[in-house]
Amino acid sequence: MRIGKNLKLSVKTVDSENRVVTVGDLEVGSDLFIVIAGPCSVESREQILDVAREVKKAGAHMLRGGAFKPRTSPYSFQGLGVEGLKLLAEAREETGLPVVTEVMAPEQVRVVSEYADVLQIGARNMQNFPLLREVGRCRKPVLLKRGLWATVEEWLCAAEYIMVEGNLDVILCERGIRTFEKATRNTLDLSAVALLKHVSPLPVIVDPSHGTGVRELVPSMARASAAAGADGIMVEVHPRPEEALSDGPQSLRFEEFRRLMEGLRPVVEAVGRRV
Amino acid sequence: MRIGKNLKLSVKTVDSENRVVTVGDLEVGSDLFIVIAGPCSVESREQILDVAREVKKAGAHMLRGGAFKPRTSPYSFQGLGVEGLKLLAEAREETGLPVVTEVMAPEQVRVVSEYADVLQIGARNMQNFPLLREVGRCRKPVLLKRGLWATVEEWLCAAEYIMVEGNLDVILCERGIRTFEKATRNTLDLSAVALLKHVSPLPVIVDPSHGTGVRELVPSMARASAAAGADGIMVEVHPRPEEALSDGPQSLRFEEFRRLMEGLRPVVEAVGRRV
Amino acid sequence: MRIGKNLKLSVKTVDSENRVVTVGDLEVGSDLFIVIAGPCSVESREQILDVAREVKKAGAHMLRGGAFKPRTSPYSFQGLGVEGLKLLAEAREETGLPVVTEVMAPEQVRVVSEYADVLQIGARNMQNFPLLREVGRCRKPVLLKRGLWATVEEWLCAAEYIMVEGNLDVILCERGIRTFEKATRNTLDLSAVALLKHVSPLPVIVDPSHGTGVRELVPSMARASAAAGADGIMVEVHPRPEEALSDGPQSLRFEEFRRLMEGLRPVVEAVGRRV
Amino acid sequence: MRIGKNLKLSVKTVDSENRVVTVGDLEVGSDLFIVIAGPCSVESREQILDVAREVKKAGAHMLRGGAFKPRTSPYSFQGLGVEGLKLLAEAREETGLPVVTEVMAPEQVRVVSEYADVLQIGARNMQNFPLLREVGRCRKPVLLKRGLWATVEEWLCAAEYIMVEGNLDVILCERGIRTFEKATRNTLDLSAVALLKHVSPLPVIVDPSHGTGVRELVPSMARASAAAGADGIMVEVHPRPEEALSDGPQSLRFEEFRRLMEGLRPVVEAVGRRV
Repeated sequence: MRIGKNLKLSVKTVDSENRVVTVGDLEVGSDLFIVIAGPCSVESREQILDVAREVKKAGAHMLRGGAFKPRTSPYSFQGLGVEGLKLLAEAREETGLPVVTEVMAPEQVRVVSEYADVLQIGARNMQNFPLLREVGRCRKPVLLKRGLWATVEEWLCAAEYIMVEGNLDVILCERGIRTFEKATRNTLDLSAVALLKHVSPLPVIVDPSHGTGVRELVPSMARASAAAGADGIMVEVHPRPEEALSDGPQSLRFEEFRRLMEGLRPVVEAVGRRV
Repeated sequence: MRIGKNLKLSVKTVDSENRVVTVGDLEVGSDLFIVIAGPCSVESREQILDVAREVKKAGAHMLRGGAFKPRTSPYSFQGLGVEGLKLLAEAREETGLPVVTEVMAPEQVRVVSEYADVLQIGARNMQNFPLLREVGRCRKPVLLKRGLWATVEEWLCAAEYIMVEGNLDVILCERGIRTFEKATRNTLDLSAVALLKHVSPLPVIVDPSHGTGVRELVPSMARASAAAGADGIMVEVHPRPEEALSDGPQSLRFEEFRRLMEGLRPVVEAVGRRV
Repeated sequence: MRIGKNLKLSVKTVDSENRVVTVGDLEVGSDLFIVIAGPCSVESREQILDVAREVKKAGAHMLRGGAFKPRTSPYSFQGLGVEGLKLLAEAREETGLPVVTEVMAPEQVRVVSEYADVLQIGARNMQNFPLLREVGRCRKPVLLKRGLWATVEEWLCAAEYIMVEGNLDVILCERGIRTFEKATRNTLDLSAVALLKHVSPLPVIVDPSHGTGVRELVPSMARASAAAGADGIMVEVHPRPEEALSDGPQSLRFEEFRRLMEGLRPVVEAVGRRV
Repeated sequence: MRIGKNLKLSVKTVDSENRVVTVGDLEVGSDLFIVIAGPCSVESREQILDVAREVKKAGAHMLRGGAFKPRTSPYSFQGLGVEGLKLLAEAREETGLPVVTEVMAPEQVRVVSEYADVLQIGARNMQNFPLLREVGRCRKPVLLKRGLWATVEEWLCAAEYIMVEGNLDVILCERGIRTFEKATRNTLDLSAVALLKHVSPLPVIVDPSHGTGVRELVPSMARASAAAGADGIMVEVHPRPEEALSDGPQSLRFEEFRRLMEGLRPVVEAVGRRV
């Protein structure tokens, strides 16, 4: 499968038309449009349980939350670490929502795998090749975020690093690229999603929270993601965004998340899927 | 209206919540999702009449076509000029479709106004201030394309140059910005559309043909545009794209345009509009 | 001449190894490293005469100053127009410095030509093709600034628009491109200068004032421009930058310009030229 | 020290005006302009010894060479690993040149430290925070390359991750950022070098090989780096670039490197330094 004049892909490992990645009972890449929701960082037991219950009630399928946090400055909050992983597991226990959380270094893969259902590779680590190989040797699905600087071709090559080690359960996540435009935090590249659905069998989800950095734009871009052919979205939700330790301006309040889900449903159905 | 931490807007001229721009019987910025279709360049009488009939039949509301063509190289086809304008007028006469066509210089405004229903300012001319002022002194609606380099703020300032001369009938058109990604011709910035619907009263349409440069991606991005809140789209259609004098790789064949319209309708309706 | 894997140039008009553009007694593109200095905008008779005398004394070869100003917002100072041209001519009369000033529209070419020695095409107008053709029909040298979005290839194609009309006296001016980096106003692309000296016979100068937008960086980047192989520089100088009507933060005070010249000389000589 | 309107720096660890980083007998950040040269990858004993002797003879101060190679595709040559480190140490033994080589993962820091004199953090790992912390706990100088996507502010924050662990011997290396321009591999941002010399005490060197990706441009950009105020350069040299396993098009032949050194010297001296 090849379109566009400039794309030279070398995806060798996966040959099927569409790869479906199974997470518990969920099939990512099927007709079910997957919604992953949760706070940027796990901040406390109360916070993560509260969010987990609310997003479950509103219809989310998985819970996100960062325990190991890559932050631009070493003086910013760096996450609760293993304590955060335990709180995520507790939230899963209560709600049944599978957990997506980031792993930042090869030596963290073992411990994060004990608690997480999906291992997230953050944008900054998209070309951290030792880390990619390590999650490739793991039996957990991997959510691979696009680097802020990465072409679609480089992104697919990064997925190859995981797959070449034997782990074919890779979910791609578009989260915006870095451009000159500063009214939004990044530029969400939905064309890349449409392109990937033509050139790769891997499921693709979209993170409109990081993609825009602006809470008010998240619901529109969630709908646009579904219409562009994405297999799901990942959005940040926080009980009180103004008090969040990270990414407050792009986090939705509970009520806003509920309205996002309501507005999303008809669009998902209009493209022949369910949510 | 103000969202996002970086946006400092100075839109002074228009105060209403939403501006509706009237073109013949059509209202751009209303609940009607506007579809503008046609070839990149008017190439011959047969070609433009053929396209006009077919896009009309498939449900398009306006006809696009370039008579004065800004081309990167002086050795490329430069358009049919006034002869092209006459052919567009003939196509309108036969089909009833209002005509959108580009004007490239202040001294062309008068002649283009005689034939066109909407004056298009191309991306390269977004900050051609004497041209903006000249169309601002004209009584025709203006479709203002975003420059490949332009922030949302600069784009709105360009609209101000038109409005400050008295012409408030400005339609913004997102058509992709220039980034490092080369798998697509440009990076279509749908977040900018969602943002504009919050910070500006002007109608916003999207050009997924230039935005992606890849024919196969145009239908998905047309649907995504509707879902993101755009007021319409502009797409390139050609009887035989492989023979087109410009933009062949991004032009849809008639059958492809019909399928685009079919796939678009449910998404438009899912966001509470009609097409 | 062809280097680099991606550059496909179509420069047809000029065949000589190096084109020297003559302005009065000066030869741009010779072993003389040309320094063009002056305010962003002509603001008053006193201001422009004052600057002209000072930059002349410090060793500048030409005077720059804007009479017709392209500004992002229609509410910003738009320049003194023809009155500004007359003041520039008066400054030339007194100091002997040839004048470089911008022309923004085809219909301004005649009047600007009456006063200017070199017609400047601003970055925003790099692909204003009717304007390029009009200065191409003129007998004055043209200084063609690179667009913020323009590849080297597109820039050379823009020069072709001028040359194809018969005017081969084109001077290219690198002035920074738009990137994600916001600590500087633009990203000055000196590699493009080195590249152009390999692939094009046209003289190339650099504008480190717009290229950085930060006064303190201008002297270093002036030296770097000379070392990279540029044929000259263009810098903004103002008697009191804090009161400037445009571009104050990137304008040098008189004393700063004198020190720039002192630091520049040894570098120019180190690459075998004189200033 | 603070210039430019957008730069918000939080460098807390280093207070001195200028930090000099000592590598063997060499002082990086002093009046000596440091030249680091060598192949992209260590490919064989013969190759690395050959290059080491030649660059030493031509005046280089340190030897570069990759043993652990981060490559876009997992199917490309990945480096000789520890065997490569041993060959680098052998080359140092023979020539006396200190060795700069990349470390890609926290668990490699110990072994790379045994052989290297300077630990290089590659562009892709600029925000690999566990790796930054690990080299911060090491007593070897660190050469921190700028990420393709990184602002100057983020780059300085990355340096903080190293310094906060106690290792203040950080050398910054500008190597080009990713922009729309494709005639060069990256856009070398020399303004960032000039800026850093105003806002940070850390030494800054430039890599014009990666910065341009085009062999013919490397000598000009080496000179421009010196003129812009850099404390040194790092360039790729290979006996037969057409047979190189990586980065051939940007590698200099021996004779080309000798000429680069000859052309560089007068510019270095023109800015009051020696090489």
